[in-house]
Amino acid sequence: MTRPALNAGAAPGSLASLLSPRSIAIVGASDDPARPGHETLKALDALGYAGAVYPINPKYAELLGRPCFPSLDAVPGPVDLVVVAVPAAAVPGVMEQAARLKVRLAVVMSGGFRETGDTGAALQDAIVATARAAGIRLIGPNCLGFANIPDRVCAAFGSISRVPRLEPGTVSLVTQSGGFGYSLALACAEESIGFRYVIATGNEADLGCVDLIDALLDDPGTEIVMTYLEGLPDARALMQVGRKALALGKPLLVWKGGVTEQGARAAATHTGSIVGRADVYRALFRQAGIVELIEMSDAPDLIKAFQCHARYPGMGSGRHAAVIGGSGGSAIVFCDAASREGIELSTFEPATVDKVSALLPPIGSPTNPVDLTAGYIGIRGPKAYADVIRAVLADPGVDTLCLNFASSSPAGTVNGAKFLVEMAPDINKPVFVFSSMHKSLALDAHSMLRDIRLPVLPSPVRVARAMGALARWAAARSALPVAGATAVDGAGRASASAAPAGVATDASFPLLQADGRALDEVFSKALLRSIGVQTPGEVMVPAVALGESPRFTGDLGGPFAVKIVSPDIAHKSDIGGVRLAVPEGRALQQAIDAVAAACRDRAPHARLQGVLVSEMVTDGFEMLVGVIDEPAVGPVIVLGQGGVFAEAMNDSTCRVAPVDASQARAMIDDLRCAPILRGTRGLPALDIEALVDVLVRVSAFAWAQRGVLAELDINPLFVRPAGKGAVAADALLVTCTPPAPAH
Amino acid sequence: MTRPALNAGAAPGSLASLLSPRSIAIVGASDDPARPGHETLKALDALGYAGAVYPINPKYAELLGRPCFPSLDAVPGPVDLVVVAVPAAAVPGVMEQAARLKVRLAVVMSGGFRETGDTGAALQDAIVATARAAGIRLIGPNCLGFANIPDRVCAAFGSISRVPRLEPGTVSLVTQSGGFGYSLALACAEESIGFRYVIATGNEADLGCVDLIDALLDDPGTEIVMTYLEGLPDARALMQVGRKALALGKPLLVWKGGVTEQGARAAATHTGSIVGRADVYRALFRQAGIVELIEMSDAPDLIKAFQCHARYPGMGSGRHAAVIGGSGGSAIVFCDAASREGIELSTFEPATVDKVSALLPPIGSPTNPVDLTAGYIGIRGPKAYADVIRAVLADPGVDTLCLNFASSSPAGTVNGAKFLVEMAPDINKPVFVFSSMHKSLALDAHSMLRDIRLPVLPSPVRVARAMGALARWAAARSALPVAGATAVDGAGRASASAAPAGVATDASFPLLQADGRALDEVFSKALLRSIGVQTPGEVMVPAVALGESPRFTGDLGGPFAVKIVSPDIAHKSDIGGVRLAVPEGRALQQAIDAVAAACRDRAPHARLQGVLVSEMVTDGFEMLVGVIDEPAVGPVIVLGQGGVFAEAMNDSTCRVAPVDASQARAMIDDLRCAPILRGTRGLPALDIEALVDVLVRVSAFAWAQRGVLAELDINPLFVRPAGKGAVAADALLVTCTPPAPAH
Repeated sequence: MTRPALNAGAAPGSLASLLSPRSIAIVGASDDPARPGHETLKALDALGYAGAVYPINPKYAELLGRPCFPSLDAVPGPVDLVVVAVPAAAVPGVMEQAARLKVRLAVVMSGGFRETGDTGAALQDAIVATARAAGIRLIGPNCLGFANIPDRVCAAFGSISRVPRLEPGTVSLVTQSGGFGYSLALACAEESIGFRYVIATGNEADLGCVDLIDALLDDPGTEIVMTYLEGLPDARALMQVGRKALALGKPLLVWKGGVTEQGARAAATHTGSIVGRADVYRALFRQAGIVELIEMSDAPDLIKAFQCHARYPGMGSGRHAAVIGGSGGSAIVFCDAASREGIELSTFEPATVDKVSALLPPIGSPTNPVDLTAGYIGIRGPKAYADVIRAVLADPGVDTLCLNFASSSPAGTVNGAKFLVEMAPDINKPVFVFSSMHKSLALDAHSMLRDIRLPVLPSPVRVARAMGALARWAAARSALPVAGATAVDGAGRASASAAPAGVATDASFPLLQADGRALDEVFSKALLRSIGVQTPGEVMVPAVALGESPRFTGDLGGPFAVKIVSPDIAHKSDIGGVRLAVPEGRALQQAIDAVAAACRDRAPHARLQGVLVSEMVTDGFEMLVGVIDEPAVGPVIVLGQGGVFAEAMNDSTCRVAPVDASQARAMIDDLRCAPILRGTRGLPALDIEALVDVLVRVSAFAWAQRGVLAELDINPLFVRPAGKGAVAADALLVTCTPPAPAH
Repeated sequence: MTRPALNAGAAPGSLASLLSPRSIAIVGASDDPARPGHETLKALDALGYAGAVYPINPKYAELLGRPCFPSLDAVPGPVDLVVVAVPAAAVPGVMEQAARLKVRLAVVMSGGFRETGDTGAALQDAIVATARAAGIRLIGPNCLGFANIPDRVCAAFGSISRVPRLEPGTVSLVTQSGGFGYSLALACAEESIGFRYVIATGNEADLGCVDLIDALLDDPGTEIVMTYLEGLPDARALMQVGRKALALGKPLLVWKGGVTEQGARAAATHTGSIVGRADVYRALFRQAGIVELIEMSDAPDLIKAFQCHARYPGMGSGRHAAVIGGSGGSAIVFCDAASREGIELSTFEPATVDKVSALLPPIGSPTNPVDLTAGYIGIRGPKAYADVIRAVLADPGVDTLCLNFASSSPAGTVNGAKFLVEMAPDINKPVFVFSSMHKSLALDAHSMLRDIRLPVLPSPVRVARAMGALARWAAARSALPVAGATAVDGAGRASASAAPAGVATDASFPLLQADGRALDEVFSKALLRSIGVQTPGEVMVPAVALGESPRFTGDLGGPFAVKIVSPDIAHKSDIGGVRLAVPEGRALQQAIDAVAAACRDRAPHARLQGVLVSEMVTDGFEMLVGVIDEPAVGPVIVLGQGGVFAEAMNDSTCRVAPVDASQARAMIDDLRCAPILRGTRGLPALDIEALVDVLVRVSAFAWAQRGVLAELDINPLFVRPAGKGAVAADALLVTCTPPAPAH
């Protein structure tokens, strides 16, 4: 069953029209306060919903003062929205009635569907089929439902239907977990943040998180979209809406639950051991300009930051902060936290220092952080305070400013807010206020500062975190490709055709079969050569020829690496199957015999196909380039320090494949060993361009082979001095177990 | 001037008696509400302080309804405490009057002392001299003062003297920053945490943070000590009070501001580049069982956790958590955060699963995390809910429990709290409650749960953080040595005599001079040999003998490392001054000539003392062992992956020196490369005992040479296969620049 797209804007069938019904029927309405059908009805009354409400339950003639109907068919007027709160078995019948009434949206709260097993899944398929045939869109089943705050619509039960009520605003929330997701909304509501739509998606039989985010981005009333999600059938679709959000300038805030794997990934390769799920999603969010949430307070903090500051023109380079305050401690704490967030302290121009100096007492500090000294406003007055702020904001090296109000009294906090309101027209850069005074004691100050778009946060650490998120988002926006430059295929995926000229396209890649096999080194390297990755000169001594002494090295020159070849042994060195730095001549023959013997002794059941003799690279630095196939994401390209101890190096980064040359260069910049690649400690600069080329080629190959390639490990990849290339000295390729899931 | 210690308990001269004055004189009392002397007076009135209060100011006959006196000498009764709020220049005169009155404590709020330069420092010295001579203890100068909350004493101005007022309790706060430090108290007060003493120490001319913590630990009314500090003249003294706190079971919570260095450490060695100030303090806190705060919310969260749970007997092994809730999302978020905190999910015993299973609906999950399903309490009732909790707490594999109340209604939250109160007698392990309902809407629930010692936190992430802190503290407590086993010297420092037998003691260490020199490799290695660290067989070819061809290798065997020796070149390989794997014979002579030539070409001004020819270790793993001299801390021993790319490895750990063998083993466990040392990937186990021995010897040497040794770098230290030892293949020692600061 294909899933129709939601239309944009307010057109019929659009999200806005679906979520603004003129009439609502509640099937399973009840007078038992513990029942969902009661909670929805009560909430609509409490909210003062303006449309028609039809409780449906054959047990009652009347409910909460309204006439109650025995069935949907008995409803006297048109019904836009049906809320379904009856046992799962009764839901298909309700959906058939809804189809006859030309209902446009059904919210199925009932559980007992796919989440319970095969019988439930069949029931779910049945209601989806009815809905599709009748053109009904579906939220749920097994969900808390949705609320449209400005229009006073509540088609929900549980927390969404209860006090405290959300205020109208421009944030929309989509969540796969009604309970935890709504906690995020509550945390924001405490900070006076208003909402437009809150949607809990449940089983997502029809409308899923990503569909809804996509439609919400087109909603003129939504400026920020926040989502909590766990399962995600297609993370590439999330990337796609992330890029759309970034292009529109509407921040997309995502909390991804379930990033900790239970136990280690069962990986055949180094690559698989190095990269965790949290790493993959962090990379994916970064590539798509998605703002990651990892703590409850991030939600209100970052929403406040974006609501106040997302539109400042200077935000593209917002990493340089100034601090002004009367408490040295708060400034020090801010600086410690800023350094963890990649925020740097600005160095003021001499003119700025002079201006500030003239306004301070002698024991103050006119450099950054500016120390006004305790009690400054009381002593010097508000004008001097405002002049200090003006001078600092005028410094061209200052992108953003943290004002510390540590332990001001409630009255002092309100006074400070008043000065800031007066000087608001002069505030032309993002300013954050740290105030340790509890909101309930300084409510006026908070609301005044909200009105002039200055976010107030309760710790310097949280100011630094918000500045960091804002700066990263602004940087992602300024790095957006010019419109139309990113090719996107029909399924919403970045296309492999973005790979640069000279890189094989899908059609020219070798055919692989998803049969769950680990390809041996010889085959894996042949495959790498076919996609343009350099391998060493080498020759295979087949198992049948072992023990003989032919002149097989031809024009190869030592020293050699001598390695067993067996489809059954992923880590050859673990069983003594590798000899390195073997010179030509008799020692070579001895090494060949020795590794073959080690294999027979220590892995007697492994099929020994032969011994590979490779020219060693002696002037390269060991890197690792690999691929993993992350569920829901597909191929992910990994770069790290390589060698036999790659895991212990823990110096790696990843991106969702494919990547272009500029993304590949950014991957290199992520690594601690980047200075080594660029040349350090008297050693030559290495061939970074060759490494970039390998990353681009391998990632394009991985993307083309999605669903077939399970893991790829090039380790070590010797990156030689500049101009001499990068050589894949060992490689291991594992294909997916059939049937291959499609990505 | 030596600083007398504070007496313990309630004896005369003890902290408790100093901070509970029977009479207070305020010198510089004022009717100007912006003046400190006004704020103190007003606060004493507002608090209802029961003792005598004497405003002192010749300008007034009366102030706020009290008689005002022209000078201290005019006060009619005895004065225990003098609060000084007059300009700095007038303070020495006030102190002399105070001396005549036999005042016991002076709180000097006035600024203008050491923080302003030499003149101020002289003034400060003068008042300290007067105070010492008269037996007066001193808080400040340049401080906000102190408050004794239960006794309604306020000898403070600014935030400490204003609303909101703190409630009495058992937490004492000592802070070097009045403004930021008091923010921590305010954050706790919002969570209904009560305080005993709040002390802002200012310039610490007499009483410093560490003195006060020490005395507070002896105060029967103080159960938890929290401190914010920046400058710290002697971090070893902080370690000492940390260990005392741990032994007493009184948690010491420390926020250390200023851990981010401005710019990189100007280090001559790898070691110096690898270890940051934050790393050193994290190690120091860990060694002393100090609880580190890094976010404002840590303060209330961890205090709640310790107040509720520090006394549970099972906390020593508290790393295994269970989760119960009706929202799958909250459980997933908890698990993600727990894994970052080192908290593991318990695996229930089959009997537990059976018991829980019988209580849940079929779609619930009886394994950990337990999913009750939405609305469980409403449907199954409180008894079933309590039975689930009992069953989980009874599981022997469960140390601690997180109960999720995500998005419960205010009424639901209160209901949940009621059930918990009823079952409180059965709660025998630390239980935490996550509730997303704002406190103001569920105040009853919060206070009920506080009464039964269940901390309520507003996010599953914060529950996981609190569990982690509690578990680490409990582990530190259970690792405490039996009483008397740790030798401590007179200055409160762990003694180097704790080093095991066979390690040289102070007296037998070679004499070093603090002359700011970098010792060359030959001298550095000779020194290492003298303290029992193994070095390779090697011979020095002096500069004068270069170019000749003597049979100098004696009984040494190749391959050789050939390195220039120059006091002017710290990183020899950077200028081509190193050749490795050089065979015997003619190639050796060529290598000697080549490195000497490279030195002359690329570092023409360096003094070339000769070329060192060393036997190469070919079967070892490259580690780094080093020492840095951290200000206020003294020698810190560092262990990490070594080699020329040590910085890029970023695999290091540190401890305040000296360390014993068990601490040295814990250092190895910290490293990602620990599996390599233990033997992995077909490679042999390495000589960990030899590495431990090096760490113990070097750390004892570093401690003995404190104030003289600035940096030491053994890199690489080749750790050979088990039984073969560890060999210092290169070493660099730098002495302190005179005059050496004493640690």
